[in-house]
Amino acid sequence: MKKILIVNGPNLNLLGKREPEIYGNVTLDEIHDYLKEEAEKRDAEIEWLQSNYEGEIIEKLQTAREKYDGIIINPAALSYTSYGILDALLALELPVVEVHLSNIFSREEFRSHSVTASACIGMTAGLGWKSYLYALLYLLEM
Amino acid sequence: MKKILIVNGPNLNLLGKREPEIYGNVTLDEIHDYLKEEAEKRDAEIEWLQSNYEGEIIEKLQTAREKYDGIIINPAALSYTSYGILDALLALELPVVEVHLSNIFSREEFRSHSVTASACIGMTAGLGWKSYLYALLYLLEM
Amino acid sequence: MKKILIVNGPNLNLLGKREPEIYGNVTLDEIHDYLKEEAEKRDAEIEWLQSNYEGEIIEKLQTAREKYDGIIINPAALSYTSYGILDALLALELPVVEVHLSNIFSREEFRSHSVTASACIGMTAGLGWKSYLYALLYLLEM
Amino acid sequence: MKKILIVNGPNLNLLGKREPEIYGNVTLDEIHDYLKEEAEKRDAEIEWLQSNYEGEIIEKLQTAREKYDGIIINPAALSYTSYGILDALLALELPVVEVHLSNIFSREEFRSHSVTASACIGMTAGLGWKSYLYALLYLLEM
Amino acid sequence: MKKILIVNGPNLNLLGKREPEIYGNVTLDEIHDYLKEEAEKRDAEIEWLQSNYEGEIIEKLQTAREKYDGIIINPAALSYTSYGILDALLALELPVVEVHLSNIFSREEFRSHSVTASACIGMTAGLGWKSYLYALLYLLEM
Amino acid sequence: MKKILIVNGPNLNLLGKREPEIYGNVTLDEIHDYLKEEAEKRDAEIEWLQSNYEGEIIEKLQTAREKYDGIIINPAALSYTSYGILDALLALELPVVEVHLSNIFSREEFRSHSVTASACIGMTAGLGWKSYLYALLYLLEM
Amino acid sequence: MKKILIVNGPNLNLLGKREPEIYGNVTLDEIHDYLKEEAEKRDAEIEWLQSNYEGEIIEKLQTAREKYDGIIINPAALSYTSYGILDALLALELPVVEVHLSNIFSREEFRSHSVTASACIGMTAGLGWKSYLYALLYLLEM
Amino acid sequence: MKKILIVNGPNLNLLGKREPEIYGNVTLDEIHDYLKEEAEKRDAEIEWLQSNYEGEIIEKLQTAREKYDGIIINPAALSYTSYGILDALLALELPVVEVHLSNIFSREEFRSHSVTASACIGMTAGLGWKSYLYALLYLLEM
Amino acid sequence: MKKILIVNGPNLNLLGKREPEIYGNVTLDEIHDYLKEEAEKRDAEIEWLQSNYEGEIIEKLQTAREKYDGIIINPAALSYTSYGILDALLALELPVVEVHLSNIFSREEFRSHSVTASACIGMTAGLGWKSYLYALLYLLEM
Amino acid sequence: MKKILIVNGPNLNLLGKREPEIYGNVTLDEIHDYLKEEAEKRDAEIEWLQSNYEGEIIEKLQTAREKYDGIIINPAALSYTSYGILDALLALELPVVEVHLSNIFSREEFRSHSVTASACIGMTAGLGWKSYLYALLYLLEM
Amino acid sequence: MKKILIVNGPNLNLLGKREPEIYGNVTLDEIHDYLKEEAEKRDAEIEWLQSNYEGEIIEKLQTAREKYDGIIINPAALSYTSYGILDALLALELPVVEVHLSNIFSREEFRSHSVTASACIGMTAGLGWKSYLYALLYLLEM
Amino acid sequence: MKKILIVNGPNLNLLGKREPEIYGNVTLDEIHDYLKEEAEKRDAEIEWLQSNYEGEIIEKLQTAREKYDGIIINPAALSYTSYGILDALLALELPVVEVHLSNIFSREEFRSHSVTASACIGMTAGLGWKSYLYALLYLLEM
Repeated sequence: MKKILIVNGPNLNLLGKREPEIYGNVTLDEIHDYLKEEAEKRDAEIEWLQSNYEGEIIEKLQTAREKYDGIIINPAALSYTSYGILDALLALELPVVEVHLSNIFSREEFRSHSVTASACIGMTAGLGWKSYLYALLYLLEM
Repeated sequence: MKKILIVNGPNLNLLGKREPEIYGNVTLDEIHDYLKEEAEKRDAEIEWLQSNYEGEIIEKLQTAREKYDGIIINPAALSYTSYGILDALLALELPVVEVHLSNIFSREEFRSHSVTASACIGMTAGLGWKSYLYALLYLLEM
Repeated sequence: MKKILIVNGPNLNLLGKREPEIYGNVTLDEIHDYLKEEAEKRDAEIEWLQSNYEGEIIEKLQTAREKYDGIIINPAALSYTSYGILDALLALELPVVEVHLSNIFSREEFRSHSVTASACIGMTAGLGWKSYLYALLYLLEM
Repeated sequence: MKKILIVNGPNLNLLGKREPEIYGNVTLDEIHDYLKEEAEKRDAEIEWLQSNYEGEIIEKLQTAREKYDGIIINPAALSYTSYGILDALLALELPVVEVHLSNIFSREEFRSHSVTASACIGMTAGLGWKSYLYALLYLLEM
Repeated sequence: MKKILIVNGPNLNLLGKREPEIYGNVTLDEIHDYLKEEAEKRDAEIEWLQSNYEGEIIEKLQTAREKYDGIIINPAALSYTSYGILDALLALELPVVEVHLSNIFSREEFRSHSVTASACIGMTAGLGWKSYLYALLYLLEM
Repeated sequence: MKKILIVNGPNLNLLGKREPEIYGNVTLDEIHDYLKEEAEKRDAEIEWLQSNYEGEIIEKLQTAREKYDGIIINPAALSYTSYGILDALLALELPVVEVHLSNIFSREEFRSHSVTASACIGMTAGLGWKSYLYALLYLLEM
Repeated sequence: MKKILIVNGPNLNLLGKREPEIYGNVTLDEIHDYLKEEAEKRDAEIEWLQSNYEGEIIEKLQTAREKYDGIIINPAALSYTSYGILDALLALELPVVEVHLSNIFSREEFRSHSVTASACIGMTAGLGWKSYLYALLYLLEM
Repeated sequence: MKKILIVNGPNLNLLGKREPEIYGNVTLDEIHDYLKEEAEKRDAEIEWLQSNYEGEIIEKLQTAREKYDGIIINPAALSYTSYGILDALLALELPVVEVHLSNIFSREEFRSHSVTASACIGMTAGLGWKSYLYALLYLLEM
Repeated sequence: MKKILIVNGPNLNLLGKREPEIYGNVTLDEIHDYLKEEAEKRDAEIEWLQSNYEGEIIEKLQTAREKYDGIIINPAALSYTSYGILDALLALELPVVEVHLSNIFSREEFRSHSVTASACIGMTAGLGWKSYLYALLYLLEM
Repeated sequence: MKKILIVNGPNLNLLGKREPEIYGNVTLDEIHDYLKEEAEKRDAEIEWLQSNYEGEIIEKLQTAREKYDGIIINPAALSYTSYGILDALLALELPVVEVHLSNIFSREEFRSHSVTASACIGMTAGLGWKSYLYALLYLLEM
Repeated sequence: MKKILIVNGPNLNLLGKREPEIYGNVTLDEIHDYLKEEAEKRDAEIEWLQSNYEGEIIEKLQTAREKYDGIIINPAALSYTSYGILDALLALELPVVEVHLSNIFSREEFRSHSVTASACIGMTAGLGWKSYLYALLYLLEM
Repeated sequence: MKKILIVNGPNLNLLGKREPEIYGNVTLDEIHDYLKEEAEKRDAEIEWLQSNYEGEIIEKLQTAREKYDGIIINPAALSYTSYGILDALLALELPVVEVHLSNIFSREEFRSHSVTASACIGMTAGLGWKSYLYALLYLLEM
């Protein structure tokens, strides 16, 4: 049975409550539930973290190597500056997919790059909660 | 019945034949066939273009508004410079997803941005031929 | 009898049909007809090209030296990147005026310069279809 | 009765103890007491946070929407890099004033901008503890 | 009867007397007379200012809203730095056309942009004194 | 009795008449009257200058050393380029506070820095006419 | 018998007819004839393409792998922007030499680099038509 | 008896377990033990912190002034962005040496500078665990 | 009898009164008197302008062509931004020497270049009032 | 009889002994001998310098004007910084060809430009010792 | 018996005589003597070079491969520009440690990087003459 | 009796023989003789160095402290890159004036700054050999 760790960065707990014109109005709990269901349908399991602390995210990632088959990460604002998450991802030997709910390429300049993405195998962005779903499908079918 | 236009930029016809360590060894024809099958399963249709000419891609996109329900585009090398494709996409009133086979964020500096992506609703990158598949699923389920 | 070549770059064939808040709602055919009429009033003739292919524009320009008294060019998206058109214009010994329908200086950063303009004698921008008209008047009265 | 949340970033707990030639010698506790008194005189209340953790600041801000009438934030060193605080501020629908004790414009280059200030209605800087006071007065009188 | 204000920036009073290989040998007075005549033919009136003082130009522009139907401005050297003229133009609710006698795009790097142009509806450049004429025709026919 | 000089740069005389969505609809005269009243209440006096001429502002500042106890300056558009005002402020031995009506950090890129601010003790920005008031209070209470 | 493909980019068909002070007055046909002769002397064969279309050049290069022993390319204006040609060259497993007739290092800034050169084994520049000749000799003698 | 505080930033707890070709295969515990032994030989004591939280590191540094004679810090990924640690170090009046296990100058561009190093007296880099040892010897012998 | 125009930019009237550690304590009047005397000794005459108005300086320069044999200019803060003075100098056919009292190369970054110097034959800087003297000697002996 | 000076910069004496995967395994002495032979076959003579001193290279170039018919220079590491060699080359009135053994365009960023090349008529790069040979042939046949 | 070459760049012979607030007051001779003694204690030998000539340093390094077990280099001012020393170091197959007496990260911008350091295994900086000592210990114990 | 050291950098020995349109046609020997004469008239002495070697210039400067009363340096091409000369000048406690024969501000971009000038008290440029003379007069009269 495959296990996938899903990590969510700062402010994603506000999802569905703030700026719906950018992020949509699905909440993070709803995304969690959809993904859990999709995983179970495929005989897999997800583990979930939302944290506003870079340090907590790094520590979760450090424990991931033996316990999971793949990682989905939405670093949110930490995408633009966290070399610490980058290093933690580089130290893993697991496939990682970075996801973004909105299209980072059509927003402010500073949002259209990601320092963490270079440690991933790929990215899905702009597809709302399905950005997570496709990352999950990909990791389960690899 | 939904119709999706899938546009492939320069050199993608070489897929599966060159630099497999970067692009994998599935050919573009195989991707076409998989996607056609996946679309048909969902009672949808795809139309397909591969062109090494920016002009030909622009003209295909110009005809798209009345004929399709969505567009998938892998502009390949044209991602980095084609304001002409950007303008053609901006003129459409259709959802567009940009796809890349490899992770553009872990390659050379010039490959980690895209001038065309800002006219799209999202991007999938680095997931091999499934970058196309998820874009297709997304457009069909919208 | 003077002859003026008027060259129109990518996506201008969509004029009047897309994004009217930026480009107005006159079509390219209507502009052609107005200009033809204005030229004829002044006992002159225009030749007209719209192309989405950089190569086709370059080849048209190459043939221009013996056949025309001046050139009007709206390179559209090719303004920002086409050193090929720049070189073709530099090789001509004809007066060239670059025209833009919208004010390129009040739009996105990348639109507020032009690599092709340095090979021209001047520019008219932001005056809608009259950007073409004044360029024509200027070339006919030189 | 109005309630204002006042948030202080990293190292501000050292205030009055370090580098007095830059930051003066009033302590953060003294600032707190002055502001409390000034608020009470105006029949208002303040809540106070000092944290060296970006995550803790983000979480405090997330809870602010229903509980306060305005926010004063001195992000200190986090001003220069924290997109996480920027996002948390953008998600609020409250007026925020950014304050700095010293004049950030006459110090090192990296200190003369602020990524968080763009989510605020204004800034007071360089006026010592009165940078806070004026922010408070402004929010109470709005 | 339409009234157009025409504003000329620093050193334009030297026109026709200096560097004729760049600026031609028509004097500013001659341009004034041509334009006056052209305006009168069309039953319109022009008002004229040449000033080497940024402050004087700003003050003239401030008075323009109620008195004129449009503005033609050749900010000359002030094009490259004057945020004060930019602000004055932004505060107007009149159509403004920026004009340049020479082609600013084929001269020194610092001359190929304009901070004031972003507050205009368009630009004519490189067409000698006719840069003014076409701006006038445009404003009268709007 | 303390005397404070208040200096207002280009276009501020338009205040309350232009772009109220950015600058509010209080006029500069009203700000003057409020501040005069506030100063008098505190047994102080203000002197007032609005000028669209950088030179006039510099000359006013040069006379300030013996006559005033502090300076409030809103350089407006001159904030971004005036090394002359910077030098005049550096030559003074008086406390200076720079004020801006709007939040310069949430507008265009070129507005989010200030060359004159480095010669001041601090800045208040984005608080409307109260940006002036708090600067005045600060200088009177120093 | 060795076969070498020689590819010529935009505007090179004008050679010998335009700007002889930069490009000399040998025509492209003459260069072709010289090279053909030199190849035949060495029992080798050349194939020749001049195209103003990036797409056509890419397609020619794609066919090259099985048919030639080496490639000479003068991308002309496409040197500065064509990632499509870069990708086509990277996909080949043939030695490629980039040639330029003039010294790209002593002309305008934008001409002194080449995005396509990084996929070649070397470059000859500034030696007129002999830039081609030496590239040919090198490839035949490898 | 001298006391030295040794601070280790994010992901250093993974040392010896990840990417040994870059970081070697000594673990952080082993480094701790070596350094403890070396300190004791010299009649000194070390205190040790490894944290993945910038906030925790800042707070440890804040307590250091009265308790230690010197500080060794390996900020790891926080070297590139942490102005908070920079400020905490600037507030200390203790000698600090920054250490890096690998040579930061021969890796990716972003790793070849350090915002925290400017608050230190020196740096040792690239000497494996001995980067720590020499920093310790230096601080003990000062 | 030779006549030399000497032009002094903003704030130079404060000379000898402000920041003597940078500018020395000779006043501008004293410099004027020294230079007058030196000119008279050599049977020459000087004319003198100090202005805080860029416009006034430009107008003085415009009148210079017929009246003087050479120009000395200390543009002070206008050195860094005044394209208007640059254009006025370019329009003259007289030798111009730019002078600075202090060494502009050992001060802040923005002071170590000059947009006006490119229109001069040379510069003297950092030699106090003798920067003027040597410029004068040079122009008289040419 | 033609005479060609061939100048080799720093570290080229190590050729064939170091990093053969970049520079090949021909030694500089062997290149000298091949070129001498090729020159003699064509009734010409070469003179040879290898120096690790910029000063020695400059002095050799200074003597070249009367003694040689052309110059071949491989400035090696001095290509990237030596304005002194640039000036010495500019002062010559001889044709100069710059040569590089490896393709400078496919190595580190800092190697892909050359400050000395702008004083040459052309460059050959990446063709191993034949980079020299073709330069020689070119100069002899001019 | 191990042999270590120690190379000192320009102006280091002035050590202890100039700017002691930056470089301390130990002379280079004293450093030499200390290091000699430390080496002998460990049954090793040092060889010593100080040169103000880049060329001489390069040539010394070229001879080092067979004769030494490691290299210590303080390139001083040559750190910032010498690609020649970089190439010489790259050609060696010996461990090299770069040393700096002062902390290059807390001085002027141009001093906070090093082009030569990327060819070294590590760096010690800011520890005065002990920067050399630790480099020596490291190389002897490797 | 005062003694002044005059140092001349690379290629200045060519003076009067090369590019007279830039550097004039006075030779360096003639400049030496004029300056010697001018010095002797004022009961002073000059010592003279021209060198094409940075190292030789550095060593001459190092000996200067006890022997001379001031230094005149024309670093020529070394102005743009020599941190070694900068350091040697900083170590002196003598007044230094940098001189340039031509106006460095009206030539190529790279020539319009100087890394060595920041260690000088001033600069004279563009006044031909009199750039030296005025520097000499200044140093003798200090």
